[in-house]
Amino acid sequence: MTDNFQIFPVGIIRKKNDTVLIEIDEKYNDALLGIEQFSHINVLYWFHENDTPGSRSTLQVHPCRNKKNPLTGVFATHSPHRPNLIALSLCKILSIDGTTIEIDKIDAFDGSPVIDIKCFFPTKLSIPDVRVPDWERKQD
Amino acid sequence: MTDNFQIFPVGIIRKKNDTVLIEIDEKYNDALLGIEQFSHINVLYWFHENDTPGSRSTLQVHPCRNKKNPLTGVFATHSPHRPNLIALSLCKILSIDGTTIEIDKIDAFDGSPVIDIKCFFPTKLSIPDVRVPDWERKQD
Repeated sequence: MTDNFQIFPVGIIRKKNDTVLIEIDEKYNDALLGIEQFSHINVLYWFHENDTPGSRSTLQVHPCRNKKNPLTGVFATHSPHRPNLIALSLCKILSIDGTTIEIDKIDAFDGSPVIDIKCFFPTKLSIPDVRVPDWERKQD
Repeated sequence: MTDNFQIFPVGIIRKKNDTVLIEIDEKYNDALLGIEQFSHINVLYWFHENDTPGSRSTLQVHPCRNKKNPLTGVFATHSPHRPNLIALSLCKILSIDGTTIEIDKIDAFDGSPVIDIKCFFPTKLSIPDVRVPDWERKQD
């Protein structure tokens, strides 16, 4: 377990007033084909403001930065301090314009680097109000 | 958007017969505190067998490698071919023994590097059969 892996931004989060946009780099335009058939996406971004040895060696936190919450391992939280600074948010798609996706909200900063987008489907867990394209419904 | 980010394994997937284990590196033991209070975790791992320029430049696939499925952008799928080779699986915890977590199943290989674990909670989406610790229920 000594190998390192390289990741790089594929887009950026933009926040202005109440509007939240995912601006995907134009060169990944083809990777978005069909995404409009989903109601929700999982957005993976990088906690770039915490990319320090200190943040990456933090193993326990009080969840939600609330001292009343018990000290908890970062793998049992969504803390922005963790060995690999990957953030995960399930977001609702509001609209799509080219390589720009408007979402309802995200707990990221304006300028956070987006590293991946994955369509969301509930698989075995039943979640109401989730839409999927035909090819997904046909699996299983 | 030119910066690269470094990630590294924090554990490894082990599969033997019907048993699926996440073996977390001992040095991250403290990061697991409290994880037993969750029924489900999101496991992030690396598609290490696809870490080639070809896989990372693939932008469209037929989902589930089925030609009958329409050509689709990788961001609208969970394809193992994508710019950043991060895999995401929602898994049910069966048992925990030290830094080894037994899960129900995962669509990874024996030997896949684990890069992050995040507790799973349904937040605004209602999912039955999900358990969360007290501190999470108190949020919102």
